[in-house]
Amino acid sequence: MKIAIAQLNPVIGDVRKNSYNIYKAAQKAVDKEAELLLTPELSLCGYPPKDLVLNSTFIEDLWLELQELAKKLPDNLTVLVGIVTENCQANFEGEKSLFNSIALLRNREIKEVFNKRLLPTYDVFDEARYFEPGKQSNFFELTSNKQDAQPIKIGVTVCEDLWNDEEFWGKRHYEENPIQDLVNHRVDLVINLSASPYSIGKQQVREAMLKHSANRYKIPIIYTNQVGGNDDLIFDGNSFAVNKKGEITLRSKGFQTGIEVIEYNPKIQDLNSSYVANIIDSEEEEIWEALVLGVRDYAKKCGFSKAILGLSGGIDSSLVAAIAAKALGSENVLGILMPSPYSSSHSISDAEALIKHLNIQSYTLPIGDLMGGYDRLLEPLFTGTEFGVAEENLQSRIRGNLLMAIANKFGHLLLSTGNKSEMAVGYCTLYGDMNGGLAVISDLPKTRVFALCHWLNRDREVIPHHVLIKPPSAELKPDQRDQDSLPPYEILDDILHRLIHCHQSLKEIEAAGFDHDTISKVIKLVSRAEFKRKQAPPGLKVTDRAFGTGWRMPIAKV
Amino acid sequence: MKIAIAQLNPVIGDVRKNSYNIYKAAQKAVDKEAELLLTPELSLCGYPPKDLVLNSTFIEDLWLELQELAKKLPDNLTVLVGIVTENCQANFEGEKSLFNSIALLRNREIKEVFNKRLLPTYDVFDEARYFEPGKQSNFFELTSNKQDAQPIKIGVTVCEDLWNDEEFWGKRHYEENPIQDLVNHRVDLVINLSASPYSIGKQQVREAMLKHSANRYKIPIIYTNQVGGNDDLIFDGNSFAVNKKGEITLRSKGFQTGIEVIEYNPKIQDLNSSYVANIIDSEEEEIWEALVLGVRDYAKKCGFSKAILGLSGGIDSSLVAAIAAKALGSENVLGILMPSPYSSSHSISDAEALIKHLNIQSYTLPIGDLMGGYDRLLEPLFTGTEFGVAEENLQSRIRGNLLMAIANKFGHLLLSTGNKSEMAVGYCTLYGDMNGGLAVISDLPKTRVFALCHWLNRDREVIPHHVLIKPPSAELKPDQRDQDSLPPYEILDDILHRLIHCHQSLKEIEAAGFDHDTISKVIKLVSRAEFKRKQAPPGLKVTDRAFGTGWRMPIAKV
Repeated sequence: MKIAIAQLNPVIGDVRKNSYNIYKAAQKAVDKEAELLLTPELSLCGYPPKDLVLNSTFIEDLWLELQELAKKLPDNLTVLVGIVTENCQANFEGEKSLFNSIALLRNREIKEVFNKRLLPTYDVFDEARYFEPGKQSNFFELTSNKQDAQPIKIGVTVCEDLWNDEEFWGKRHYEENPIQDLVNHRVDLVINLSASPYSIGKQQVREAMLKHSANRYKIPIIYTNQVGGNDDLIFDGNSFAVNKKGEITLRSKGFQTGIEVIEYNPKIQDLNSSYVANIIDSEEEEIWEALVLGVRDYAKKCGFSKAILGLSGGIDSSLVAAIAAKALGSENVLGILMPSPYSSSHSISDAEALIKHLNIQSYTLPIGDLMGGYDRLLEPLFTGTEFGVAEENLQSRIRGNLLMAIANKFGHLLLSTGNKSEMAVGYCTLYGDMNGGLAVISDLPKTRVFALCHWLNRDREVIPHHVLIKPPSAELKPDQRDQDSLPPYEILDDILHRLIHCHQSLKEIEAAGFDHDTISKVIKLVSRAEFKRKQAPPGLKVTDRAFGTGWRMPIAKV
Repeated sequence: MKIAIAQLNPVIGDVRKNSYNIYKAAQKAVDKEAELLLTPELSLCGYPPKDLVLNSTFIEDLWLELQELAKKLPDNLTVLVGIVTENCQANFEGEKSLFNSIALLRNREIKEVFNKRLLPTYDVFDEARYFEPGKQSNFFELTSNKQDAQPIKIGVTVCEDLWNDEEFWGKRHYEENPIQDLVNHRVDLVINLSASPYSIGKQQVREAMLKHSANRYKIPIIYTNQVGGNDDLIFDGNSFAVNKKGEITLRSKGFQTGIEVIEYNPKIQDLNSSYVANIIDSEEEEIWEALVLGVRDYAKKCGFSKAILGLSGGIDSSLVAAIAAKALGSENVLGILMPSPYSSSHSISDAEALIKHLNIQSYTLPIGDLMGGYDRLLEPLFTGTEFGVAEENLQSRIRGNLLMAIANKFGHLLLSTGNKSEMAVGYCTLYGDMNGGLAVISDLPKTRVFALCHWLNRDREVIPHHVLIKPPSAELKPDQRDQDSLPPYEILDDILHRLIHCHQSLKEIEAAGFDHDTISKVIKLVSRAEFKRKQAPPGLKVTDRAFGTGWRMPIAKV
């Protein structure tokens, strides 16, 4: 029996459009002779719908659309659709009012509904906020239209349901164990419908985990993942299948929609081999694909076709310009140069070289006169004080204003260009360079920004060579360099990784060989910058701990 | 037996200081002859600690401090302290790694630990993210030092544990029912240690709920609540006790720290009457107290003694100035007037009258020259376009820059002054008037802003009369009025309440008698303004649904 895997890119809440895309996938599935179509978790509303599910008619509208969709789908095709459903006994049992469900559609009807059992509540996930965990093991039988076919028993799991293999993780994450339950029910095949956000190296983890489970339980597994950018989250697709030996028998291309077919072979009670796309084996290439998709989808889903950004001649804005040019087309990217009296001559020439390499639009707006205007106005108040952070920030904020004025005037999406190291220690200006609708590289530490630019330049010079070799500087006062106020980025990024990703304490980081005062300073800076991060634009998440919806820190604290 | 109730105001994560305040409360409790001291939920680390609990040494540091505290406390006093503890069997059982606990300290030792059973996951609460629910009923016995005293059996509940009376709510919120379990264990008294954030009218709900439960189960209840502002959340204290007839026998003053004592009388197996503070019976007074506390604590806990804000002569900034003057002292508030050529003459005179009434500092910075500077710089790009949102926003952003420059220069906290109606429909400028460390009235609809100002003027004119009678205007173009682009505020606020608080759909609001096109426009505006709210400063929460940590909406959506 052939099974089609639709790697879909939904728009959150656009139920009509998402439904149409499932319908189109169903037609393709039939063309490919599939008898079962798998779509991702919550494929009808998109993942994550967040508080939209609290709106009174959201659940009803979804159900009505599901019924309409069921009527339109081809006969003899079974389709699994992800949907939010109501928990009718919630009020009597003291349970959450919704389920994260999978509906089974066949012959114009909604035949069955399965509920997700393991609900993630870590990092960016808030599923216990909305959903009651399903209590039953989820499976169904399907008999192929082929002559003499026997029914196949298929186990249904939703995303997190399979992230609980205590052998693989070294510990249990949840009390329940859906795959063990399915094995006890003697299913022939396990499918997993997911909306699993991208992070660096995550596909390797997914494949290793499901290889382990397939091999352990001697059961083939088909994994279907959502693709596309939704605000800060990028879904990479990378749907795949493993046979009962734990071998990969199918892999869809990452970071794009697509439909693939795999055959369940009843003779061997396993999956036949199918198309296996190469896995991206360079972290830099993977990140690049993710960020390009993240920018493209955020712009498209918010209704922008063009983007604007400030070009300082530095490495961060150069990288963001390259990503934007790839995502939206170079003709749709406008780079603004805003030199001040403190700008070095190379800041202009480097930006100009970049503009030429990328073939993007550009404009130059020197900010010296405006700086003078603010100075004159504030002079009576500031007289007798020394040039400091207030004056430095003003330059950044003048630039931020100019970018927003142009963005507002012509309907461009402003991209902010700060990296994760800056965002961590607050080496950035709120209402200045932090301005933007989307923070493209705010989850990339500075050292990773360098690595990505070097990778980008592997065949030809995209990022001007001089940008890569000059010392980083905000150029907000004469001869300023980042390293005047921050530790070298190699050290800073290592300490930050230990703090942010590993939750290490000062003592633990010190034990790893770092200087006490340096760590102490970094900890203070990170803590104090919380108020800036609170007001940052959504930033594309590429690590397992980004400053975004999964980072929830008090501001007023010790 | 006398029981002391400490209404404490912790700083999140400042374990040393919070511990010291518990120690001081213990001394006062002994002075008042109490034998048991109650402190709020998580009193040692403050509520909510959020992701701080994920740091590797946070739990260990808390435990060490708890041990130190136990050693210092007076003999013969039993103290209940709120603390996060480790769930040692988490990895084997597939459970969350922490508990939200209450430690019982007596005679220099940690005698017992009780775990919170019902974990809220709605609105601003994320407790399932960190904590495993406690599975056991929590109670202990305490015998008074008085002659011939019999042991009293005391049931321990933590905040949400008591928010599950299906008779009161008309439905069950949780499967477990801690108070029923305690009654089954024949406890004499139930205590509830809470960190329950303020919202309008919430104290009335708490009292009605616990009166109902006390009366239903014929058991006295003592409710201890945290007080103080922590970021967007304001905790109002208002600790109280109800006897088994459901009568209030104690009430602490709201919005301030304090320690009160109540006596459990074994003869009547009930609570004697004690101090009962008047409940604030005006919603406006309640909101005023909440906002003053919110501003005071946010400033203090972030290390600010002075605040700055822009004064437009409008009602919003006038109200915020009055709140700031009350919270920080009028000598610590600096109002900046930034008239443009579009400013009306009364915008200056009204602001000046306010400054005089409040006796705050002020300074005037006309922005006309800077507007000209931006216009000249952008002229080549903007030529041929019409004056529009870009130009309007620029004025607001120039003002935002000036305020931030002064705030940065002198270390002031910038307060933003937008109201909830504006924030809802996006009638505000990102990086302009939205600038600030704290949004003081962003949870007050415009109609409520008017009501609060009228209340404030009940004895004398604080907010200048003319501010209250002139039509609201952003004054960003000639003769502009809010009502040119928005429905009248009475209608807008009603529609917004239905959308935001009641989750009503267009059809439902239409059925309530509102115009289809007006509702449709408001829904679109609210949806489109999500990107602005994402970047707003923390806003003091005073309703049951604020645009803050409890509002989680996708930006890119339909």
